[in-house]
Amino acid sequence: MSDLVEAVGPSHVLTDPETVAGYLTDWTGRWHGTALAVVRPADTAETSAVVRACARAGIAVCPQGGNTGLVGGSVPPVGVPSIVVSTSRLDWIDDVDVPGRAVGAGAGVTLARLQRSADAAGLACGVDLAARDSATVGGMVATNAGGINVVRYGAMRAQLLGVEAVLASGEVLRRWKPLRKDNVGYDLPGLLAGSEGTLAVITGVLLQLVHKPRRTATAIAAVENPAGALALAAAVEESGIVVRAAELMTRRGMDLIASYGHRRPFAEPPPYSLLIEGEAAGTDLAAALDAAGVVEAVLEEGSGADLWAVREAHTETIARDSSSPVVKLDVSVPLPALEDLIDAVDPVAAEYGARHIPFGHVADGNLHVNLLDVDPGRAAEVTDRVLRIVAGLGGSISAEHGVGRAKIPWLELSRSPADLAAMRTIKAALDPHGLLNPGVLFGVNSSRE
Amino acid sequence: MSDLVEAVGPSHVLTDPETVAGYLTDWTGRWHGTALAVVRPADTAETSAVVRACARAGIAVCPQGGNTGLVGGSVPPVGVPSIVVSTSRLDWIDDVDVPGRAVGAGAGVTLARLQRSADAAGLACGVDLAARDSATVGGMVATNAGGINVVRYGAMRAQLLGVEAVLASGEVLRRWKPLRKDNVGYDLPGLLAGSEGTLAVITGVLLQLVHKPRRTATAIAAVENPAGALALAAAVEESGIVVRAAELMTRRGMDLIASYGHRRPFAEPPPYSLLIEGEAAGTDLAAALDAAGVVEAVLEEGSGADLWAVREAHTETIARDSSSPVVKLDVSVPLPALEDLIDAVDPVAAEYGARHIPFGHVADGNLHVNLLDVDPGRAAEVTDRVLRIVAGLGGSISAEHGVGRAKIPWLELSRSPADLAAMRTIKAALDPHGLLNPGVLFGVNSSRE
Repeated sequence: MSDLVEAVGPSHVLTDPETVAGYLTDWTGRWHGTALAVVRPADTAETSAVVRACARAGIAVCPQGGNTGLVGGSVPPVGVPSIVVSTSRLDWIDDVDVPGRAVGAGAGVTLARLQRSADAAGLACGVDLAARDSATVGGMVATNAGGINVVRYGAMRAQLLGVEAVLASGEVLRRWKPLRKDNVGYDLPGLLAGSEGTLAVITGVLLQLVHKPRRTATAIAAVENPAGALALAAAVEESGIVVRAAELMTRRGMDLIASYGHRRPFAEPPPYSLLIEGEAAGTDLAAALDAAGVVEAVLEEGSGADLWAVREAHTETIARDSSSPVVKLDVSVPLPALEDLIDAVDPVAAEYGARHIPFGHVADGNLHVNLLDVDPGRAAEVTDRVLRIVAGLGGSISAEHGVGRAKIPWLELSRSPADLAAMRTIKAALDPHGLLNPGVLFGVNSSRE
Repeated sequence: MSDLVEAVGPSHVLTDPETVAGYLTDWTGRWHGTALAVVRPADTAETSAVVRACARAGIAVCPQGGNTGLVGGSVPPVGVPSIVVSTSRLDWIDDVDVPGRAVGAGAGVTLARLQRSADAAGLACGVDLAARDSATVGGMVATNAGGINVVRYGAMRAQLLGVEAVLASGEVLRRWKPLRKDNVGYDLPGLLAGSEGTLAVITGVLLQLVHKPRRTATAIAAVENPAGALALAAAVEESGIVVRAAELMTRRGMDLIASYGHRRPFAEPPPYSLLIEGEAAGTDLAAALDAAGVVEAVLEEGSGADLWAVREAHTETIARDSSSPVVKLDVSVPLPALEDLIDAVDPVAAEYGARHIPFGHVADGNLHVNLLDVDPGRAAEVTDRVLRIVAGLGGSISAEHGVGRAKIPWLELSRSPADLAAMRTIKAALDPHGLLNPGVLFGVNSSRE
């Protein structure tokens, strides 16, 4: 502990139970851990000193950004001597490199702050998501966060030009050049992206920025089924309009949010609705929707804040309306299997007395399965049922957030033994003593739900 | 050897010196290796058997696709017992998954064949490059090839949805789902991309496909300097036209190709020319060029084959006109440093009695430095000078093709000791006996130029 105090100063080694409580529980309230301390280094050198001190003492290091994940990956384990390394003070942000279209930021900078910085420079970040005010860019890289514009720009890994990170040895890995093409050996930044803090503590990220779209238009269109939603998104793209987002919603979801006073885009909700944002004038998007045979749609010029509010109202409303913590599974399937997934989950939900209100980033095959009113004692059981359906359809048990602690029991549904063995080999090579985020991704020392 | 014959059959273990000669020399004629045999497995299982046999016998395995690289990464070493594993018979290609927008193919399928297959299904491959008729998709993934449309779709790693590969142990790693989002552990496909055959033998790739652009237009515009070219590409993008390609050419290049009878787009070549392809009608691209202050341009509707011919004529003409093998360095720098790079290389070229005719994918900061008439005995020396200039400008010694054997002496210019150590740790973990492509990327057993 004295080494930690020496590394970051006494006021940044937090041990007061009330102060550290927030770091030991995730925001869903499902995951709890224990830690000897919460340590807040001010820069990469201090982070390195903290990791070295922990390595000497055999204390595990659990990196934590905005703590907005869904799978328990950002809370420490139970019963393992560990500290939380909070990235909250790694909050520096460089001036935007306008001609190079890039910006460097400390791991603890929130997405919203990075977006404001990019915006002020006439550029934009390629990733956007609802948790933008609390999610940090370090955590977003560590989980390869995607969000609503993946169909246009890809996820965080695709934005990552460089990274600064502390390895388990305490050594600092730094690639920090605003280069679009740099093929000199292994893509270590890309390997750290999505590694959930198990290979390094990310302290800084260098992200590409994108041009702001010249004009955008947003619509919510009535569709019969998920296949119709996919066909519509494809038709808009093929009409020459670049699609920025395509979000599927259901009649049940629309009915529910309306019952809480949110806007109902259609007097009589259709079976499914597709929110689509395209890089086009409103008249052009309207023409594309017409040409694709859409019979009912509401449209706004621009990024359509009122229409996005309909989509974003789902999350909060679902949480409020459920009699128990919502079972939220962020999964993906091949595009043609989206409808099969919804159809297969519905009867399982019914079997558990639950309501199924899915929505998702349909152009990426990414569905948020939301199960309301599940008896908490049966949450693991219904999760198992749903993830097996996903796997049976050729899908992934995690489209976002990673594996964390929550999805370890189902790893084998998404990865073969040879694949898992190769991952473990890499983990053991880079972190031979299992110092970094133990229990996340590979299990062994799991905390308790 | 009998194990190899058993694995693939006698007619696919080639040892006749004349037959194998083509596999032992790269297409530039600069790199030569030796091998006990060239082995051509028919599928992944045979490839696994070959790797296991070699592991038992302590014989190195050197994967080879189209052998179109520039850095000696596809030829075996000298003086190390090794075989070449040719992917030529891994030439299967799946039916295109049209709704999933994906296609699976054996590593030995050429890019051109994959493109035809995608095209017939109404889709396109996001990567295109001049060597499309011989470059294989396996080799392109192994080197993270980029080509002309990186500015629009990214390089091969960004297209890679899945991979099938044989690890050094002989085990088969397979991720094979057409998912846009799949965050379950480390991005092993992305790690193999760009690993130059040092971590696995890639036997199959599952690639995303993209929508064909609704309409394209292509122009060659006169610009004063590289900064002007970059500003023009940015202005076109900001006008709302998606830029598909942006290729910089020089007055010297234009003069040279004209002297060989190729088209001269401008009666009096400007200092620099920018070929730009955008997703727009020709009138809209013309308007964007006008608005950006372009005073002289030629424009074609569509993908502009006649204009692309001007760009593609450079490669062959330069090779024909040089009195010695052209020193070709495929490098990148931060966008604002492109002009500095050209300006700094010019006097070095003069010092060596060489002509410098660069061109490149300017929107990616990727420049092809071509030095003509270099005394072959001084090629390494001038390469050293140029790569140090690149590094001094914050660039990468390899924008394409990787490190191979050619660029090993300059690795430290692009990667820190901690970075190289982390790469070596991964290599040693996944290939503890150094079976796969020894001497490539990390050196040690280098073949001779």
